[in-house]
Amino acid sequence: MNDQFYMAQALRLAEQGLYSTHPNPRVGCVIVLDQQVVGEGWHRRAGEPHAEVHALKQAGRRAQGATAYVTLEPCSHHGLTPPCAEALVNAGVQRVVMAMQDPNPQVAGQGAALLRAQGIEVDILDGALSIAARQLNCGFIKRMEQGQPFVRLKLAMSLDGRVAMASGESQWITGVAARADVQKLRARSSAVITGADTVMTDNARLTVRAEELPLSAEQKNLALLRPPLRVLIDGRLRVPTDAPFFMAGPVLVATYQTPPTDTASIDYIQLPERNGHVDLTVLLQKLAALGMNELMIEAGPQLAGAFMQAGLVDELYIYMAGMLLGSSAQPLMQLPVDYMADAVQLNIKEVRALANDWRIIAQPVKR
Amino acid sequence: MNDQFYMAQALRLAEQGLYSTHPNPRVGCVIVLDQQVVGEGWHRRAGEPHAEVHALKQAGRRAQGATAYVTLEPCSHHGLTPPCAEALVNAGVQRVVMAMQDPNPQVAGQGAALLRAQGIEVDILDGALSIAARQLNCGFIKRMEQGQPFVRLKLAMSLDGRVAMASGESQWITGVAARADVQKLRARSSAVITGADTVMTDNARLTVRAEELPLSAEQKNLALLRPPLRVLIDGRLRVPTDAPFFMAGPVLVATYQTPPTDTASIDYIQLPERNGHVDLTVLLQKLAALGMNELMIEAGPQLAGAFMQAGLVDELYIYMAGMLLGSSAQPLMQLPVDYMADAVQLNIKEVRALANDWRIIAQPVKR
Repeated sequence: MNDQFYMAQALRLAEQGLYSTHPNPRVGCVIVLDQQVVGEGWHRRAGEPHAEVHALKQAGRRAQGATAYVTLEPCSHHGLTPPCAEALVNAGVQRVVMAMQDPNPQVAGQGAALLRAQGIEVDILDGALSIAARQLNCGFIKRMEQGQPFVRLKLAMSLDGRVAMASGESQWITGVAARADVQKLRARSSAVITGADTVMTDNARLTVRAEELPLSAEQKNLALLRPPLRVLIDGRLRVPTDAPFFMAGPVLVATYQTPPTDTASIDYIQLPERNGHVDLTVLLQKLAALGMNELMIEAGPQLAGAFMQAGLVDELYIYMAGMLLGSSAQPLMQLPVDYMADAVQLNIKEVRALANDWRIIAQPVKR
Repeated sequence: MNDQFYMAQALRLAEQGLYSTHPNPRVGCVIVLDQQVVGEGWHRRAGEPHAEVHALKQAGRRAQGATAYVTLEPCSHHGLTPPCAEALVNAGVQRVVMAMQDPNPQVAGQGAALLRAQGIEVDILDGALSIAARQLNCGFIKRMEQGQPFVRLKLAMSLDGRVAMASGESQWITGVAARADVQKLRARSSAVITGADTVMTDNARLTVRAEELPLSAEQKNLALLRPPLRVLIDGRLRVPTDAPFFMAGPVLVATYQTPPTDTASIDYIQLPERNGHVDLTVLLQKLAALGMNELMIEAGPQLAGAFMQAGLVDELYIYMAGMLLGSSAQPLMQLPVDYMADAVQLNIKEVRALANDWRIIAQPVKR
């Protein structure tokens, strides 16, 4: 078996942490001695041991002379846990293969340098597995590299690109499988962002619901220990503080007005106004500073369009139902475009059936 | 090898006639003696021999005691060619397997009866191959069974369900692969229907263009011998008779006004008015009476919506481009729906990538 084989295994381990490592990255580790896997580990949640530590513990003395496959460069700094690079050295590992460098430009390469200084052979893979390793931590990487979270815009539409009737009449248009997928998307996100209209019109709560989350018992338990922060964009503070949304757990309200002082149980963040909304770019920077890796927007056409127009969307998750809501129904998003030349170009990454519905993943082509 | 194996082969032969048998059905035939294929044939074009005759000719004396696999019940009547059932009897075939009965209720079963009367064993398959045989001749079958053609509505849209800018600005939004697929769709159709706006605004000609048709030389030559009739729906006779559309070949103009008498080179059909258009249901009946099996609608949002609202569309072919044209752009079709309960439900049959675009085939659920 070659490096790619074991790194793929490490990646599958890392994916186990998809719903729980926030604000940390998802990391997996496999330790191989004489073509035998002697240790496996993945990072479960912040404050608990890193993937390497789990794998080294399992390997025990068989780590001596072994090769460690890690999906991300081992850390070299003392954070909540001691540096993993040191742990690998102390365990007598002979070679370390990583799928990508640490994305934090301040520390990238330091883990590898520490290992090499101790005579350990270090290889960094490129190619498909390196790309997969980056995708797995798209949010953590973007936050480290750019100080911004990775933003997913989730939409549910009819085949003709409509989301609700003109009257506002609305209901689930996608089926159970699509909704379960949305639950997974919420659970993996550091925060879910919505707007006042969605909360008031649809009585949305945007929580992760254990009974609708199609995960293994272990992943589900971990996910529920770390629900995504629910962020309400409510520039004019229109949503009454006794709305069901506020009853369902912690909320951060982003507003351009002065927050009330009599609501101790709700967190507020006051931001500049821009184009009738809170300044979305500033909001994202603030959320990144709070450790938010992946954001998911679940909002109506107005707010969804505002994020899109501001060029802040990294990925669209569109759930498409087999129906036509017709030409008078509400558009996918408020996005005024006058000329063909100004159309938003998309890379469609994947189209997949979810029972009777279809999920389209697309990325706006940045200009 | 079993019956299904040879029938699948006969179906592949029948598909060779996809672009040329109009107004006849596509039919294939395989003759098998002692587990050996001794004859193959497919119907090429009206007036030429039927599939069975080609296959019997190739089999020669080896047809004696053989089994014939035919995708459609052999004809028992004298049309442009002598009845195939008689030909099979005369050749000494011992058994005939067919994928479906003749769809014409007046003659269904007569071919099989004629064969059985001569001591030939006859089997009619059901299951997947029978369904495939019906799909291959969806238009012919619907015309025979219901006196209506099979209607395909072709649309090209952005991911957000828009077809052109509000100003009318428009251009190809799909790529070369999607356009080649549209050429094949045109070529297999008995007629292509369009409206005055499309012809005047886009200067559309809606012809089959040899250089854009991705077929084998033989199929292409056959297809070009039988181009689809171009039908222009122009209730008020707005399109000038010197438009490029009229220069590109035969046209049938459907109008509710009195046709001019000074345009000998253009055929007109005068129909009742209904909802501001010619009566579309009557038009389709007239086209079926002219032998039209499969119709393809290539029109703007108004006419496309009119066909949809009238419940006359059997299948949607939607070519979806990876772009957003935005909320002020023109809708997929004019289809006013006020209540969710009145949404048009669709069965999405297939979603397929065509280079960077996607093709969605969907069928409206008839209520």
